[in-house]
Amino acid sequence: MKRYQHLAEALESSILSGALHAGDRLPSIRAASISRNVSPTTVFKAYYLLEAKGLIRARDRSGFYVVGPEGTRPPEIEMTSAPDERVFNVDVSDRVLQVLGATMRRDLVPLGSALPSPELYPIPRLSQVMASTLPKLSVWHTVDDLSPGSAQLRHAISLRYHADGMQVYADDLVVTNGALEALNICLGVVTQPGDAVIVESPTFYAALQALERNHLRAIEVSTHPRDGVDLEAMERAIQRYKPAACWLMTNFQNPLGSLMPEDKKRNLVALLQRYALPMIEDDVYGELYFDSRRPLPAKAFDQEGLIMHCSSFSKSLAPGWRVGWVAGGRYTQHIMRDKLSLSLSASAPAQVALAAYLSRSGFDRHLRTLRHRFEWQRNCMLQAITAHFPEGTRTTYPAGGYFLWVELPKCVDTSRLHQMALAEGISIAPGSIFSSHERFHHCLRLNYGHPWDERLQTGMEILGRLIAQQLECGDHSTGEIQQGAIP
Amino acid sequence: MKRYQHLAEALESSILSGALHAGDRLPSIRAASISRNVSPTTVFKAYYLLEAKGLIRARDRSGFYVVGPEGTRPPEIEMTSAPDERVFNVDVSDRVLQVLGATMRRDLVPLGSALPSPELYPIPRLSQVMASTLPKLSVWHTVDDLSPGSAQLRHAISLRYHADGMQVYADDLVVTNGALEALNICLGVVTQPGDAVIVESPTFYAALQALERNHLRAIEVSTHPRDGVDLEAMERAIQRYKPAACWLMTNFQNPLGSLMPEDKKRNLVALLQRYALPMIEDDVYGELYFDSRRPLPAKAFDQEGLIMHCSSFSKSLAPGWRVGWVAGGRYTQHIMRDKLSLSLSASAPAQVALAAYLSRSGFDRHLRTLRHRFEWQRNCMLQAITAHFPEGTRTTYPAGGYFLWVELPKCVDTSRLHQMALAEGISIAPGSIFSSHERFHHCLRLNYGHPWDERLQTGMEILGRLIAQQLECGDHSTGEIQQGAIP
Repeated sequence: MKRYQHLAEALESSILSGALHAGDRLPSIRAASISRNVSPTTVFKAYYLLEAKGLIRARDRSGFYVVGPEGTRPPEIEMTSAPDERVFNVDVSDRVLQVLGATMRRDLVPLGSALPSPELYPIPRLSQVMASTLPKLSVWHTVDDLSPGSAQLRHAISLRYHADGMQVYADDLVVTNGALEALNICLGVVTQPGDAVIVESPTFYAALQALERNHLRAIEVSTHPRDGVDLEAMERAIQRYKPAACWLMTNFQNPLGSLMPEDKKRNLVALLQRYALPMIEDDVYGELYFDSRRPLPAKAFDQEGLIMHCSSFSKSLAPGWRVGWVAGGRYTQHIMRDKLSLSLSASAPAQVALAAYLSRSGFDRHLRTLRHRFEWQRNCMLQAITAHFPEGTRTTYPAGGYFLWVELPKCVDTSRLHQMALAEGISIAPGSIFSSHERFHHCLRLNYGHPWDERLQTGMEILGRLIAQQLECGDHSTGEIQQGAIP
Repeated sequence: MKRYQHLAEALESSILSGALHAGDRLPSIRAASISRNVSPTTVFKAYYLLEAKGLIRARDRSGFYVVGPEGTRPPEIEMTSAPDERVFNVDVSDRVLQVLGATMRRDLVPLGSALPSPELYPIPRLSQVMASTLPKLSVWHTVDDLSPGSAQLRHAISLRYHADGMQVYADDLVVTNGALEALNICLGVVTQPGDAVIVESPTFYAALQALERNHLRAIEVSTHPRDGVDLEAMERAIQRYKPAACWLMTNFQNPLGSLMPEDKKRNLVALLQRYALPMIEDDVYGELYFDSRRPLPAKAFDQEGLIMHCSSFSKSLAPGWRVGWVAGGRYTQHIMRDKLSLSLSASAPAQVALAAYLSRSGFDRHLRTLRHRFEWQRNCMLQAITAHFPEGTRTTYPAGGYFLWVELPKCVDTSRLHQMALAEGISIAPGSIFSSHERFHHCLRLNYGHPWDERLQTGMEILGRLIAQQLECGDHSTGEIQQGAIP
């Protein structure tokens, strides 16, 4: 065996054993040649061999990175879910809270968690920046950074919009306690108790909780697992129920992982304008794309200010710091007023430290690594599903974010599975919490936002076994999506 | 002149020139004797002389402190305000926001501000604690400190309750983004749109804004400027309008500064229990007492868990950090659920740093100084009112907090005064923003939470002149409180 083959084998075993993770950058040719005491050509050949095997990839002209396994995948979910197009009162909080309580427990395998692993985030670096920034600041920051929020931070956020070609200025932004508060405030601004609001089906349970808290009703509209909400069904719902607003995730929807193509986003915006319908756009996963560039939000095509674009640093940079924002379009003043009377402002130290962090380099490098890790972890999870879940299982193939959606044979009850899994030390997010009227009984959301390790691998194996147990006593129809009557 | 008289004179001129501030601690007898090169007896005599003059005071067995001027005061407001006991729809936000916008401007003399000066708070010290604490922490804090909030911080808060003799445990607490969010969440927990809620008259405008945002109606109940809400009027209102809740400030009410005596608090709690009426208690100023001990909140007498006790560090320790909490009684679980779905949690770095700060000594020392300064500043302001405001002016004499309430001759219109003052670079808080139906036209709230200086002194002079200008063209009746019809 030649030297370069030896080197390649050593690296391969580091990758497969998990010592090197997806997203890790390999040493430069020069650095490896010195540290391994071989010629640069040997390193080069070893890297090429690994790239040919699909284990590493040259990326962004910045070097070679470990990539994820590209193994077998389960079949993709291809049909559009078709809920009853009716208006529902929302009463989900107890159900959701029961599940959420479990998904936050650190002792469980976090397949049902809503959060990615904080270990993937530069929190020590952020803390350093905060530590070095705060002592130098005027105490008046605590006053100046009240709503609409720190001017420096809003400027830094607006620069990122501009880098994506969007004309969003600091004055268009209101800083909030994470995107969740932004979404809730926007909902209050454009609705009155009793109004109906369009959401996706399945939809993020926090949207349902917000509807419930605000005494609103839900219209759940068919949503394609690959490209998002069905615009024809949405138009029918608008005509029929005169909703006050819609709340949508166009990029890497939670829980499906669907991504609406740009053309469809343009059509969505045209639809909003035709009916003067305000839209709350939850775009917290937009930065977590696996493709070559950030997918634009629908907001990018909105000339009339109908879209309130909500995002945050919680999934991209600083989980737990609770700093989000909204670009509020024509509703910005009203949003700022409500933010002020609801909770005054976001925490000053977090605002100041984030503004300082963003003014330096590092965020984009961190994001590249993060996206790469999530992509690898998605692949690991798809492979584990193929290996351990029964025939008839279908999934989505998200091109970003850290959730995927699984459809099991129809006789499986994932609420019961949730209880069985808990007993084995595993959390999952059963499908029923993503609907106001307990649809998606045979579906679940899986989180691949945690470094792939034996614990997750074993968790997936056990989950597969538990599903098989249910199948043994149930009926064996395949995983067709339930077709609700369209009245 | 003897040596001790020389020393006393030197110290007196330091105090009167402002070099030594109210609340500053004088050097110990021993330290002063060494640094001034005089005998301890000389220092002792000088301090006694200054104490006899009312310039310093021995306090807390911890030394001598500079005290404020105890000059002339305007007459006290002695009557109970008597609003119409009716239910009102609330539509105050535009009015309030217009005034608030002005009160936040740093270039104005801050007589109308809602906030104390951040210069009176140990923000540099807190920043240091944060800087030293954060780098050592596990990244998992960002997950573990989600709602109900950091366990360490809740423990530290519960210790302070216990020090006051109240049985509030860490599990009874939910950490929020400041008290304002806590108050808003509590209101949502115990009301449905359309419900009526009892508030004080005058009341803190944020309560009115919260009612408006939640589509609730206000019952404004007579509130005595010295000892708080009129319990008989409150009982009549309960019987007549079946309110869903009441929202009260029993300690140093904003804007009156009134303090409900303990016996009256017991009667208030008995009233709540008689009608099973939930109460939201806003106690953000409770730590800012000028007397010898912290006044207990009504919560201390509540055996049935009807009171949701909301407070924060924003006025006592860390303005702008946005960390508050609620001891939610029987509503704690519901409050935690709503906090989770509204904004997930308070900012982790702020929670962690506050827990670390509270575990050390320093908070109580800071509070002693702060109370002393506010007391001095209150006296300065009362003196300035006596000197510059017209006959017929009456005020409250708050025994804590940093607001006082001024009643002017009835023909004065403080909304107009607000505009006139703005043109002179001064903000005030006109009486009308403290009522849902624009009462208190001839009243205003003044903020004494800023170090007394020439700018404030001049601001008060100008304000007095502007009031006089209004009087010249108006009628000269004295400042009787407007008596609304009691139906």
